[in-house]
Amino acid sequence: MTITVNLNADLGEGYGAYAMGDDESMLGIVASANVACGYHAGDPLVMTRTVKSALAMGVSLGAHPAFPDLQGFGRRQMRLSAAELEAMVAYQIGALMGIAATCGGRVTHVKPHGALSNMAAVDESMSMAIGRAIKGVDPSLIFLAIAGSEMAEAGRRLGLATAEEVFADRAYDDNGNLVSRALPGAMIHDPDVAATNVLRMLEEGVIVSITGKRIPCTAHSVCVHGDEPSAVAMATNLRKTLEAKGVRIATLPEMREGF
Amino acid sequence: MTITVNLNADLGEGYGAYAMGDDESMLGIVASANVACGYHAGDPLVMTRTVKSALAMGVSLGAHPAFPDLQGFGRRQMRLSAAELEAMVAYQIGALMGIAATCGGRVTHVKPHGALSNMAAVDESMSMAIGRAIKGVDPSLIFLAIAGSEMAEAGRRLGLATAEEVFADRAYDDNGNLVSRALPGAMIHDPDVAATNVLRMLEEGVIVSITGKRIPCTAHSVCVHGDEPSAVAMATNLRKTLEAKGVRIATLPEMREGF
Amino acid sequence: MTITVNLNADLGEGYGAYAMGDDESMLGIVASANVACGYHAGDPLVMTRTVKSALAMGVSLGAHPAFPDLQGFGRRQMRLSAAELEAMVAYQIGALMGIAATCGGRVTHVKPHGALSNMAAVDESMSMAIGRAIKGVDPSLIFLAIAGSEMAEAGRRLGLATAEEVFADRAYDDNGNLVSRALPGAMIHDPDVAATNVLRMLEEGVIVSITGKRIPCTAHSVCVHGDEPSAVAMATNLRKTLEAKGVRIATLPEMREGF
Amino acid sequence: MTITVNLNADLGEGYGAYAMGDDESMLGIVASANVACGYHAGDPLVMTRTVKSALAMGVSLGAHPAFPDLQGFGRRQMRLSAAELEAMVAYQIGALMGIAATCGGRVTHVKPHGALSNMAAVDESMSMAIGRAIKGVDPSLIFLAIAGSEMAEAGRRLGLATAEEVFADRAYDDNGNLVSRALPGAMIHDPDVAATNVLRMLEEGVIVSITGKRIPCTAHSVCVHGDEPSAVAMATNLRKTLEAKGVRIATLPEMREGF
Repeated sequence: MTITVNLNADLGEGYGAYAMGDDESMLGIVASANVACGYHAGDPLVMTRTVKSALAMGVSLGAHPAFPDLQGFGRRQMRLSAAELEAMVAYQIGALMGIAATCGGRVTHVKPHGALSNMAAVDESMSMAIGRAIKGVDPSLIFLAIAGSEMAEAGRRLGLATAEEVFADRAYDDNGNLVSRALPGAMIHDPDVAATNVLRMLEEGVIVSITGKRIPCTAHSVCVHGDEPSAVAMATNLRKTLEAKGVRIATLPEMREGF
Repeated sequence: MTITVNLNADLGEGYGAYAMGDDESMLGIVASANVACGYHAGDPLVMTRTVKSALAMGVSLGAHPAFPDLQGFGRRQMRLSAAELEAMVAYQIGALMGIAATCGGRVTHVKPHGALSNMAAVDESMSMAIGRAIKGVDPSLIFLAIAGSEMAEAGRRLGLATAEEVFADRAYDDNGNLVSRALPGAMIHDPDVAATNVLRMLEEGVIVSITGKRIPCTAHSVCVHGDEPSAVAMATNLRKTLEAKGVRIATLPEMREGF
Repeated sequence: MTITVNLNADLGEGYGAYAMGDDESMLGIVASANVACGYHAGDPLVMTRTVKSALAMGVSLGAHPAFPDLQGFGRRQMRLSAAELEAMVAYQIGALMGIAATCGGRVTHVKPHGALSNMAAVDESMSMAIGRAIKGVDPSLIFLAIAGSEMAEAGRRLGLATAEEVFADRAYDDNGNLVSRALPGAMIHDPDVAATNVLRMLEEGVIVSITGKRIPCTAHSVCVHGDEPSAVAMATNLRKTLEAKGVRIATLPEMREGF
Repeated sequence: MTITVNLNADLGEGYGAYAMGDDESMLGIVASANVACGYHAGDPLVMTRTVKSALAMGVSLGAHPAFPDLQGFGRRQMRLSAAELEAMVAYQIGALMGIAATCGGRVTHVKPHGALSNMAAVDESMSMAIGRAIKGVDPSLIFLAIAGSEMAEAGRRLGLATAEEVFADRAYDDNGNLVSRALPGAMIHDPDVAATNVLRMLEEGVIVSITGKRIPCTAHSVCVHGDEPSAVAMATNLRKTLEAKGVRIATLPEMREGF
């Protein structure tokens, strides 16, 4: 039986005169793109360029909503009411839909960014607010959520197609959460280790934590990064390794019935 | 034969803790609302509240895109490329569509705001960029454009349903343009004069300029304001006067076939 | 012996086209103004107008730095590094100094705003970062800090002239902290109760908490608000009551040697 | 007689997670830095880092105020009132002074950025507003202005020490204005041509325009850029060539008496 998985990356994270990441390289690797929507990065022109490039490469489009924090790149914790959170997420999804429509494309998934994602992952109220926003804007949107998180739970509870996401270049703790970047060993720099980890998640359905504990997981999509040359190399290696093992890479909408 | 006209107002122009205008009163007077989209005013929560109130009152929803200039309330001229303008307008329309969807409503028209509208009114390139954004996001959207402007021309050229808008409380010059607010006589403060002017536009199809010149015009919609108590009083008087003369007030989508 | 106290208010909290509070009334009541610096409210024009009005009324000027959060009026918690916090506070103080200089005035104190103040009040690291920023910009600046807070402690540790501030219209809990606005009884609406509380703080050096507990306090300055007509009335009553009891109202620099 | 000239560069133009230019290289070449103040680029942390690096290298500090337009990097024309312009410039200078003070440094000059500079260069009212802001904040500040511009004229009229600036990598038209970047030949890419041009300006006091016309000029300071590797190479070559010819490179405050 063929294993199918999605590869996703955060793209379109430039702003005005500022560049970020190597979007063109990443579009040749991933099958789905999470496009910044102007709150932590991205502006209407950057979004337009990113959408056009993704469509040209057959990469499916997702909104990548965040806290309103360009200065902190959406990585700073903010405390918002659930109502405000819901409205902000709806705003950002809609904004990308508007841009996508002008390019002849469609937004098919939503993946929260940075501190919003990290906070919601362990907060039911935030996760439900995000889920309600997604469902309210378009109930056919796929919620791309950290595997095992409150977001994944909220997505399913709301009846949304929910794709669970794992990370190739990050270590996990014994609770199945990402080890904080501030701690040693949080980042995996060896491409072969990363590929081996991902294959194990796909074939055995387990994450092996930083202490060696085996944690059951569902892995529909693997997040790869393109911020540095080494990240692009790692993502390239991961895709090659997966394909060499017979794993099929698909867009999120292609995998929809499996969520 | 019954004359039908739309009354529209700019609403949802608060931001965070800041209030602007008397939206509740205006929603009892107008048939269509132009909702700020976060660039000159409005934020996701304000937009949500405004959309809900408008829907509850049977008022149709329009996006009110502007320059990215909260500090200047979108009233300061900015020079953007046509590509950037197009992308910004699409972004803002989409954002409101996202919010509207979460409230069970639909955006049915677009009216540019402030300096963007004033500059585009006499600039074909800007008008076409705005028109392309509207058409690209949703070709069924109605373009609410200043009567006789380049925007109205662009809307028709692009095949958009185009509603021409006149102002009840502003004087016109001999070219059919609004007299600048900086000049004496620009604002009409007498509610009866305003109502008489609008009736003349509707019944005779002419604007009488500040010097007395008669200028042919098409008036599908009348813009009223609610920034001050006197503005609300004027708008109330206008609606009453029109209804007393047998004029029917309709939403823009209700008038669609006439554009 | 004459008791001397400062009355302070947060002013200049408009932004662009948006108004907030009744600054003119408050300038007739208080002796020191905390001027918003563009992060939670205020823009260069608003700051200029506020500084000019304060100078004309003999009211001393303070910077009112906040989180970079116009949308949330600086009331939303944000997690920043100490280095970033220090730099942001220095930026805002300097910005107001620039404006003040063009108006022939001087900034003589600093009072943190909203969530920044509330978080720092119980966080030594944040308080020290704020204190270092104040000292770094100008060691002669007075740090106006919530009475009994970590900010007051940090100010003294850094050798800054530190004025302790109490609130006339807020209830205190048994730890001497403000009762959250979300809880019943948090706001004091009766002007006479407010005035009595403040007199007790000044004469007896104690706050009586919401449960009746007597907590020792130092009260150099009383914060009054002007967001609503009732707030202006309460502030007016407070000033009159204090003066009737022989309390002298002074600017913070006039009280400097007492800190 | 030794010729003395200043070399200046725009630095600190990153923002949050975004990098821009090669500041470290440029700090080894120039004698004065124009530091972005948060309106077109720069944030408090970026400003702090830039100030510290400049001070460590003995490079003098200038404020680089701009329009409030991060999205457009301050390169988009905006129409502001003179009062607003003056307040915005004062705000930005003050903000950098605040940051500089925390680093033990002083701001000694001001150079407007991008569209603000280009518009003011040919607009007396804007130039006077900028000049008044500089003088109002600190009359000892040096106004670094495009040679022969309305800004230079305004600076002198207001009694400010005014340094005239030329460009090494830009062609001039017959009126002594920069050829628009949109036109062919606007940029000079050959380091030797650039160095020859600058030497001619310093030794003969003339600019040779793109058509060959000789235009008298005063050149106190030469602006060099560091946005691309080739720009750094050109700036390095220019400094070497000037020093080889015996030209002395000095900070703006060192040259003060000559303005």
